[in-house]
Amino acid sequence: MNTNRRNFMKTMAVGATALSLPGIMKAAETAVVKKIALKQDAVILFQGDSITDWGRKRENVGYNDQVGLGGGYPLFATAQLLCKYPQKNLRIYNRGISGNKVYELRDRWDEECIDLKPDVLSILVGVNDYWHKLSFGYKGTVETYEKDYTALLKYTKERLPDVQLIIGEPFAIKGVKAVDDKWFPEFDKFRAAAKRIASAFGAMFIPYQEIFDDACKLAPPAYWTGDGVHPSLAGAELMAEAWMKTISNK
Amino acid sequence: MNTNRRNFMKTMAVGATALSLPGIMKAAETAVVKKIALKQDAVILFQGDSITDWGRKRENVGYNDQVGLGGGYPLFATAQLLCKYPQKNLRIYNRGISGNKVYELRDRWDEECIDLKPDVLSILVGVNDYWHKLSFGYKGTVETYEKDYTALLKYTKERLPDVQLIIGEPFAIKGVKAVDDKWFPEFDKFRAAAKRIASAFGAMFIPYQEIFDDACKLAPPAYWTGDGVHPSLAGAELMAEAWMKTISNK
Repeated sequence: MNTNRRNFMKTMAVGATALSLPGIMKAAETAVVKKIALKQDAVILFQGDSITDWGRKRENVGYNDQVGLGGGYPLFATAQLLCKYPQKNLRIYNRGISGNKVYELRDRWDEECIDLKPDVLSILVGVNDYWHKLSFGYKGTVETYEKDYTALLKYTKERLPDVQLIIGEPFAIKGVKAVDDKWFPEFDKFRAAAKRIASAFGAMFIPYQEIFDDACKLAPPAYWTGDGVHPSLAGAELMAEAWMKTISNK
Repeated sequence: MNTNRRNFMKTMAVGATALSLPGIMKAAETAVVKKIALKQDAVILFQGDSITDWGRKRENVGYNDQVGLGGGYPLFATAQLLCKYPQKNLRIYNRGISGNKVYELRDRWDEECIDLKPDVLSILVGVNDYWHKLSFGYKGTVETYEKDYTALLKYTKERLPDVQLIIGEPFAIKGVKAVDDKWFPEFDKFRAAAKRIASAFGAMFIPYQEIFDDACKLAPPAYWTGDGVHPSLAGAELMAEAWMKTISNK
């Protein structure tokens, strides 16, 4: 790690000083069209795969329950939300499940999304829709991903017409363990599909790939992610900071 | 909880709107004399009792290890530190142990403080030095607390002359479970002693009591602490935000 960091600092000696965390977050912010104003008693739901799940307790978990929120970006975003908006009586849930692809969200969507009646629904899904093609023989394509994701959101909007959507961009950090050259450019198509879907549904879109790419100019990729897919503690906070930019200060 | 909140909002209808989280943090900030500038490769150590410990893994835990940092304010402060200062190569440890009073810190101080050679040492201790008098027949007094704490910091400064100290004020939220009228005014003497000690050693002092008291004007006490002593998720983030105010942006 130290040798990595020294080499990294040598490589990055030119240019890196122009970058900073506020700069990265500015990039995240310009990607957001109209921020979400949280209403009183708002229910916020985090949905997705292992990056969202992150070891959370799954049985008998109510809102704002720390062990039920897991140890990833939903925890850090929730801590900030509860601290920043104490008067709003927010109710925040995490229902991410490790390994999920879009069709697996659909299989549990009535119970683990619609029934919770979220006012704000944040989804991060897509890395397994690609990754499992490599490692588990999954046969879905980017077209499957876009079609299933679109159908899922259409189904959701029909049942929760006022829900405010936040779509996180699937991301992968090249050169760290699980993520090698053969991911690209195919994986980029999943990112582009997520962005198109966000646009089609008027959702907030969080450009995690750009955020991580920029962060990797400040510290080595392994500082932000252990395996190229799952964020480190620093990476989870980076995601939470970006997530918070989708919420209005009001 | 909802009834509590409704009653609370009725009671607080006048005055509460003037308060806000930035206002609370401003109060924390004015209590800080000269912020700590983190040097490159700085080692930061969180020490204290259960509020610091918060379910952390204790065996074979290195720096920046999420399960080793527990689930309390050290986790949320560390996430922010690692995210905000990626170029500093920070190494952050939590060595809080549930139930500890000052003399119990001293018993393990060589291994769990001095040997780690912290550049920044953050200590929060004192609630058990009072509480255990009520519930476990502990015989120490506020004089014991101040004498032991002073000796501990003198011992520390002799071995780590350049260490930068952060002293957290012990706090208790009256009217929530464990904390009733009989705590006061005796407990306040422990708060005052911690402040005197911070001043004597030129330490940063975090006025947690004032911060929680102000926060309790924005949401009911039970929103910030489950039992009057241990912070909720919102309370842990509140503490982390205040802790971060002791660190310079440089």
